[in-house]
Amino acid sequence: MGNEVSFAGRHLLLELWEAHGLDQLEVVDQALRDAVEACGATLLTLKLHTFSDTGGISGVAIVAESHISIHTWPEWDYAALDVFLCGNCDPFDAVPVFKKAFRPGQIQMMESKRGVR
Amino acid sequence: MGNEVSFAGRHLLLELWEAHGLDQLEVVDQALRDAVEACGATLLTLKLHTFSDTGGISGVAIVAESHISIHTWPEWDYAALDVFLCGNCDPFDAVPVFKKAFRPGQIQMMESKRGVR
Repeated sequence: MGNEVSFAGRHLLLELWEAHGLDQLEVVDQALRDAVEACGATLLTLKLHTFSDTGGISGVAIVAESHISIHTWPEWDYAALDVFLCGNCDPFDAVPVFKKAFRPGQIQMMESKRGVR
Repeated sequence: MGNEVSFAGRHLLLELWEAHGLDQLEVVDQALRDAVEACGATLLTLKLHTFSDTGGISGVAIVAESHISIHTWPEWDYAALDVFLCGNCDPFDAVPVFKKAFRPGQIQMMESKRGVR
């Protein structure tokens, strides 16, 4: 087929609004771990940071297939998530995990293919 | 002004092609640190992983303003970089750093505003 496209990975940018639990470290930690598992990815490192001024949390799971990250703004009930996975992993498999963990009233998604050749 | 837009951060997706040094840990490490500095961001954690099969490297700098990440595919002379920064930091300030570090023959860029309200 002449219209086949080869790419290195799929990068899903997720915007959660009217979301819950965004200042709860254990919720964010578990959501990242569950997302890694749901996508069939291999966890290498998980790091979390909390911000005392707002209660915001930043977390990144580095996986063998790239990374899954979250940055939360509890003051806006908003979180920005990225699910960037190469190989056969499907980043959309993380969406039900994040819906369950953060119960957002609204979700926006954008997928970007990375390394298109 | 009626057309003002408020957002949480700016996320720059960078694709480097025909790039060099993508399997050199010290080059990737220094590039991430220099990018953090160039953007005026505050480094919280920097983690790097190497992949023995391809020589590829994954690295994430978690900063107080979100994150800067890199995933390299030396076999394609390709690297995927993300510079996601909130506050007054400008992610485009990282571009000259990555150009100098990896001397790519081609660069593709896409900016996404995150948390647009």
